[in-house]
Amino acid sequence: MRIGILGGGQLARMLALAGYPLGLEFSVLEPAADACALPLTRPVRSAYDDPAGLTQLAEACDRVTYEFENVPADAVAWLEQRVEVRPSPAALAVARDRLHEKRLFQEQGIGTAPFAPVDGPEDLERALASVGLPAILKTRTLGYDGKGQVVLNEGDEPAAAWKRIGGVPAILEGFVPFRREVSLISVRDANGTCRFYPLSENTHRDGILRLSLSRPEDPLQDQAETLARRVLEALDYVGVLAIEFFDLDGRLLANEMAPRVHNSGHWTIEGAVTSQFENHLRAVADLPLGETTPLGHAAMVNLIGAAPPTPDLLRIPGLHLHLYGKAPRPGRKIGHLTLVEETPERLQTRLAQVLERAPEVAW
Amino acid sequence: MRIGILGGGQLARMLALAGYPLGLEFSVLEPAADACALPLTRPVRSAYDDPAGLTQLAEACDRVTYEFENVPADAVAWLEQRVEVRPSPAALAVARDRLHEKRLFQEQGIGTAPFAPVDGPEDLERALASVGLPAILKTRTLGYDGKGQVVLNEGDEPAAAWKRIGGVPAILEGFVPFRREVSLISVRDANGTCRFYPLSENTHRDGILRLSLSRPEDPLQDQAETLARRVLEALDYVGVLAIEFFDLDGRLLANEMAPRVHNSGHWTIEGAVTSQFENHLRAVADLPLGETTPLGHAAMVNLIGAAPPTPDLLRIPGLHLHLYGKAPRPGRKIGHLTLVEETPERLQTRLAQVLERAPEVAW
Repeated sequence: MRIGILGGGQLARMLALAGYPLGLEFSVLEPAADACALPLTRPVRSAYDDPAGLTQLAEACDRVTYEFENVPADAVAWLEQRVEVRPSPAALAVARDRLHEKRLFQEQGIGTAPFAPVDGPEDLERALASVGLPAILKTRTLGYDGKGQVVLNEGDEPAAAWKRIGGVPAILEGFVPFRREVSLISVRDANGTCRFYPLSENTHRDGILRLSLSRPEDPLQDQAETLARRVLEALDYVGVLAIEFFDLDGRLLANEMAPRVHNSGHWTIEGAVTSQFENHLRAVADLPLGETTPLGHAAMVNLIGAAPPTPDLLRIPGLHLHLYGKAPRPGRKIGHLTLVEETPERLQTRLAQVLERAPEVAW
Repeated sequence: MRIGILGGGQLARMLALAGYPLGLEFSVLEPAADACALPLTRPVRSAYDDPAGLTQLAEACDRVTYEFENVPADAVAWLEQRVEVRPSPAALAVARDRLHEKRLFQEQGIGTAPFAPVDGPEDLERALASVGLPAILKTRTLGYDGKGQVVLNEGDEPAAAWKRIGGVPAILEGFVPFRREVSLISVRDANGTCRFYPLSENTHRDGILRLSLSRPEDPLQDQAETLARRVLEALDYVGVLAIEFFDLDGRLLANEMAPRVHNSGHWTIEGAVTSQFENHLRAVADLPLGETTPLGHAAMVNLIGAAPPTPDLLRIPGLHLHLYGKAPRPGRKIGHLTLVEETPERLQTRLAQVLERAPEVAW
């Protein structure tokens, strides 16, 4: 089966690497000439909203999926008339908009931080009154890695914050005193079968994910699966879905979701029987889902901006390196590394070795 | 680093899949338009001995390796003047010729089946007198998967056998009453560091490998490593080397070797910390070798001629499918599957499930 992917970055690259062994073929629609998935797929070089490029992609594949949620809605709607798009455009429409996302969580009885829609500066005062301070003003769409967000503290000027995020439709979210952030990678096929990976426990710095630890026996696993299943079923979802949660002393609040493979699930390549990439493709291609059983305790460390010298990393026993073939640039995700050990203690020892050899990857 | 591969079949394909995460890039020199590594590499479509194609490859890469030992020696010699070739052309020259190979084994004190060179029909009588019957006449070069071989029994006409293999330089080998065939996948880097995978125990049918079982605690592991190390050091070898042995009640006789990643090592993708493909590339690219530690007990089953329906296979828990993207054809290796379990008993249970669902893959 021929799979088309909207976007040719590292997620598309890792999807292709996982999918060739299943006998799948890959075309990628991507405007950038140096996108890192292009060397290993059939590239369709075009803007996402160029009808010629979209036509070429539609003709080159039997299914379409995407590696980011900010693909133009019109492009996806156009493609859907010609070829099956998974996850569905309806699911994408919810996941790409923070307000729709939060409302879906509410409808499904899933707790969230307090929030209020902000369509203009006049809404902001009202929102602040209901949400309280401190709070974060976030664009409804197009935000990622901490972009499109402004924190509002006592004494800040609301109008300035509204201007800083570009004066676009937004939501205001209250802070919640969370103990940790976890995410659940789940996958659902077209028959409704759902599978869930062990939770990931995530550490961010400057809004960018730095470290994910797999949590094979987390006490909140069942709670997370129950909540995720509601979302998967409400959206009649097909593919991998990632949901980020705040852990408030044992109660999970949904923060946001991503209708795609997710950075916090990269450890599944070596740390689970079937990776999130392979399972996403199995769902997209109507193949039976693979086991999500963990193969130990895993850690994933992002390489941000620049990577330490490859030999330094590869000398660490058992370290798995994933470079994306991207040029270094401050704040850019250019690779990750994964460690899998039998016990959390041995994993911590290995992580200490990583910090010793490559302190610049610190989380 | 840019890697050039001579040959664009499944071994090149799996090398590329293993090498992209290390940040490597791949060009493949390959005459066939439908070769299965082409969709995921930069193809150089040309005959192996076409100077234009060789020039293009040499300019596109920093190292050259190969996926089969029958590349024209002249082409490799030409490339060696322009770019580092690993394993070295000298090692290739030995491994591609059954007579040189056997003589190297002898020089290194490694036992073999009785053999004698056969350069023409007149040699054959002399060889038969020294080797005895039954025996196998094998072409010195270009044989694989049982091709280029004729068995000689009492009463057979030697001249007819010579004609059947094409009247080319050959060797006559005596039969040895072996208990099993095992192979050792080893890897050596340019500094002389050697690593060895657990032995594979191999089952052939009609001259084609059908099943390899990893043997994490085989009593002959040390013996095999000692013998392989002699070969690696004698050839100042860099890369993965596979040696097939006959097990004669605890004594290993070398049968043949392959200067490349090997079908009996495919289980290392899921069954070892670092796969043979990644370790070959690490050696070729001067990166530190990865651990060869097994991750359980593994089985690799070849898919020959045609593959069972993909969903039937993927429904078996923990089964890893590797399709090569090749059209079905009788006798053709079009994929393999791998199972990894904690114990040999559980592995046998899984293999029984495979036979139940897909009896056509029987070994």
